[in-house]
Amino acid sequence: MSDFELDTRLANDSVLVADGPLSQIRLMNDERFPWLVIVPRLAGITEWIELDGEQQDKLRTELNRTSKALKSEDGVEKINIGALGNIVRQLHFHVIGRHEGDPAWPGPVWGSGQAHRHDADELQRRVAHWKDKLGYPPHP
Amino acid sequence: MSDFELDTRLANDSVLVADGPLSQIRLMNDERFPWLVIVPRLAGITEWIELDGEQQDKLRTELNRTSKALKSEDGVEKINIGALGNIVRQLHFHVIGRHEGDPAWPGPVWGSGQAHRHDADELQRRVAHWKDKLGYPPHP
Repeated sequence: MSDFELDTRLANDSVLVADGPLSQIRLMNDERFPWLVIVPRLAGITEWIELDGEQQDKLRTELNRTSKALKSEDGVEKINIGALGNIVRQLHFHVIGRHEGDPAWPGPVWGSGQAHRHDADELQRRVAHWKDKLGYPPHP
Repeated sequence: MSDFELDTRLANDSVLVADGPLSQIRLMNDERFPWLVIVPRLAGITEWIELDGEQQDKLRTELNRTSKALKSEDGVEKINIGALGNIVRQLHFHVIGRHEGDPAWPGPVWGSGQAHRHDADELQRRVAHWKDKLGYPPHP
């Protein structure tokens, strides 16, 4: 299996927050929603069922940690979890904090309007916020 | 905790195919997509992170079995997994077989147009098909 390389589109739309046991945890650069993306550091994987049991276990802990961090965020009422991959085939799980009246409510965020980018300073603050909240040890 | 009762909207939109270790596996009555829904037989649960470890383990096996059944279906190119719950709060996971050019492609199925119901005979055939394909033992 070749080395992991992050899909170009994911690289453009999101920034690295932390490394979990299996995956990069990334923040979508879209101020409309608190929105994290879990991208396993594996090459050539497009479906959840292509992960072996150990990999699924690790991803589950990442899903739990990410969901809990989002759920405890001010204003978040509901967590949305999704693994679609119709456009970007590299396996990735979206975890999004939603609330009544948010820009896509009650529909899904995917395909709903255009991303509103953070300005550079705010993006850095958001990354620091989520890094702290997720609490993963810094990358060695 | 009170007894499990299926949400009225899920009851209207889908039919029971099989009982997994934790959940009802239901078929969405929408001929546009091969679309299964996993609904844990638990009362008062709205988020994945409200399940305990054992329940998450069981749900994972259901996700795997359902995804594999859909993936091996003729014409399915990609699996979409989603747990949203913005409208129906009862925890449920969607597992949907997608292909390029399907009626919602490449967007998500949620919120995309109206369901096209199967006629009664075809619905019964579809339920039998998925029951057989999932291979869960009949309910005692």
